[in-house]
Amino acid sequence: MVQIAVFGYGTVGSGVVEVIETNQKEIARKAGDGIHVKYVLDIRDFQGDPIQERIVHDVEVILADPEIKVICETMGGIEPAYTFTKKALMNGKSVCTSNKELVAAHGAELMRIAGEHQCSYLFEASVGGGIPIIRTMNDALTAEKIDRIEGILNGTTNYILTKMERDGAAFDIILKEAQELGYAERNPAADIEGHDACRKIAILSSILYGHNVDYRQIYTEGITKITPKDFVYAKAIDCKIKLIGLSVITKEGEFAMVSPRLVPADSPIAGVNDVFNGIQLHSNMLDTSLYYGRGAGKLPTASAVVGDVVECVKKIGGSIPAAWDETEKKLTDNGAFRQQYLVRIKGMPDAMQQKAEAAFGGIQIVQIPEAADEFAVLTGEMSEQEYRDAAEKIPEIIGMIRR
Amino acid sequence: MVQIAVFGYGTVGSGVVEVIETNQKEIARKAGDGIHVKYVLDIRDFQGDPIQERIVHDVEVILADPEIKVICETMGGIEPAYTFTKKALMNGKSVCTSNKELVAAHGAELMRIAGEHQCSYLFEASVGGGIPIIRTMNDALTAEKIDRIEGILNGTTNYILTKMERDGAAFDIILKEAQELGYAERNPAADIEGHDACRKIAILSSILYGHNVDYRQIYTEGITKITPKDFVYAKAIDCKIKLIGLSVITKEGEFAMVSPRLVPADSPIAGVNDVFNGIQLHSNMLDTSLYYGRGAGKLPTASAVVGDVVECVKKIGGSIPAAWDETEKKLTDNGAFRQQYLVRIKGMPDAMQQKAEAAFGGIQIVQIPEAADEFAVLTGEMSEQEYRDAAEKIPEIIGMIRR
Repeated sequence: MVQIAVFGYGTVGSGVVEVIETNQKEIARKAGDGIHVKYVLDIRDFQGDPIQERIVHDVEVILADPEIKVICETMGGIEPAYTFTKKALMNGKSVCTSNKELVAAHGAELMRIAGEHQCSYLFEASVGGGIPIIRTMNDALTAEKIDRIEGILNGTTNYILTKMERDGAAFDIILKEAQELGYAERNPAADIEGHDACRKIAILSSILYGHNVDYRQIYTEGITKITPKDFVYAKAIDCKIKLIGLSVITKEGEFAMVSPRLVPADSPIAGVNDVFNGIQLHSNMLDTSLYYGRGAGKLPTASAVVGDVVECVKKIGGSIPAAWDETEKKLTDNGAFRQQYLVRIKGMPDAMQQKAEAAFGGIQIVQIPEAADEFAVLTGEMSEQEYRDAAEKIPEIIGMIRR
Repeated sequence: MVQIAVFGYGTVGSGVVEVIETNQKEIARKAGDGIHVKYVLDIRDFQGDPIQERIVHDVEVILADPEIKVICETMGGIEPAYTFTKKALMNGKSVCTSNKELVAAHGAELMRIAGEHQCSYLFEASVGGGIPIIRTMNDALTAEKIDRIEGILNGTTNYILTKMERDGAAFDIILKEAQELGYAERNPAADIEGHDACRKIAILSSILYGHNVDYRQIYTEGITKITPKDFVYAKAIDCKIKLIGLSVITKEGEFAMVSPRLVPADSPIAGVNDVFNGIQLHSNMLDTSLYYGRGAGKLPTASAVVGDVVECVKKIGGSIPAAWDETEKKLTDNGAFRQQYLVRIKGMPDAMQQKAEAAFGGIQIVQIPEAADEFAVLTGEMSEQEYRDAAEKIPEIIGMIRR
């Protein structure tokens, strides 16, 4: 029986205990040994809860116990998770986490420390919840050269976009509905402004390059400006609107960004709806593949943490190689990234077409009956910089979505 | 540099050499060492081909070479692949294969032999081509209790069904088209009769139970009886028709079968079209997840074989645990499996409804303008045995598809 500890008895932490208890038999078969939660670190007491007798308030108790081989860090946030994780790894205890903030900010350092102390730092749950995307990139597609990652990495925003499209309702109304259903937080900024997706695409990009991609260099745009009319325009050109964490290698450079994007309605990722997440990879031998599932929630996330625990148990005394190192990977400035743009313009095509063509070059006019005093143009492929320069010449622009 | 050999320089075997040469750098990074193909075993000479100098005709040359650590068996068929694989494993050489026939027939024995000789027998490429479904079930979803596997496991039949639905064309015509495009073989029986999907769901079922599921006990029905009208009926009840390899644990028992099935049009697996494969899993913590990609083809399949080689290289001298053992897993007779049935009946509803209700109980009548002299009923949930008993009473039945 391998003894483990859980740091933080919140949603995911209590899920970890539940997963281990419910699926004991399956887990023991896969791990080659049973797994038992000996301690739960939390500042609360949980009086009357069966977990109460395993609660400790002092992290040192756990760090000093040589029986503890693996720790699940499900506290979230940078501190004290960062300090506790470092100490645990320095004590040769593997750490499995769902903490995307910490992985994005200090993952490379923590993996190096793990490697120096014959233990591992794993974080499957930090991206895509229960979808095994980290393991797929690290351990499965090892014969592939991946050149494009497109991820629907945030369930809250995917729910909102799916619902806006289906109901034709405004962003504010659906956000409020999502908050009432518990799909969006009271303070929804991290989700709707794209910050959560940004951390996650930074993690996937770091795996892609084997070097640290600082999330602060990734251009991030949320979904707050998307309106019901945008979905009608999107439909007119056979597309869906999704908040996409994109990381891509083209002949112009290496790019990453988070923004609403138009994806072809018949592409696999367009079928990822509601709170589900999906990550579409393109690689040079396998072509397109997609990984779909629940990207959040107590049990799916906890299951991914426990999957990492199983991995650590199989390798006790050894170290799972770092997915990336501390070298900073500098991405190319997005100004050089080429794509199409769907641009909404105030006015009528007959009056504006010449002006739009002069600015954007060859364009496709998109008109919808729902909008009488505006139209849209789909540009050809042009760089972000070219787009910005062109857009400056047209003050009538209402909005733009990339494709 | 790790030296390996390839058995069989056909489509997949030559793909393995191509993948290793093209993605050398990525593979070395993931494996922690370079990989070099020292020998290719084939009865042909390949005069003038750069591979010629590495071709050997005698398997003993390879087996006797202590430098060779891993072998890719891409010959297909039972013999001589079975004999060669056994000998290689007994010599402590790991074997990675795309040979589903051999894995389905002798996988458990070969994994045991590998375990006895500090090497591994891996077969990611045998199911779902380049989709890492084996690794997902074995190594990623280790904290899950999986209770349902639904796989579109054969690209040829999925192409035919997708095309029949889109074009409204007959099976024979689309089959011929698929043969001309190289998507179907001259002798298409293994695909269209479901035998290929049967081997694959047997492999996934064996992983599910950890014991050997003999593919010969799996009821298998192909797609040859599907007609354009079936798709119209399916659409009327918001479904798609897919050839599904199903393996499921219900309160009535443990079942597996291959047959055309109606899947809800908005389910993720319904979006798996053309030659693509997709495997949808249901498990008790993660709920639904889906894995999508190219299930066949030279490079995707070869990439999965090489991914296994990387795994073996990381564990040279060790053995990757057997995914299942030789104990025979007896499944429950399908007679007890409960599902719905869409039953096409000759005649008009007014004349036949009472008879159908008497036989099937509560039914939903489905009528389509395309069929004037027939209709369909969607039954409630009933067991296969109950269905068979009921269907016997209605000689007017034209066809049935499970849902």
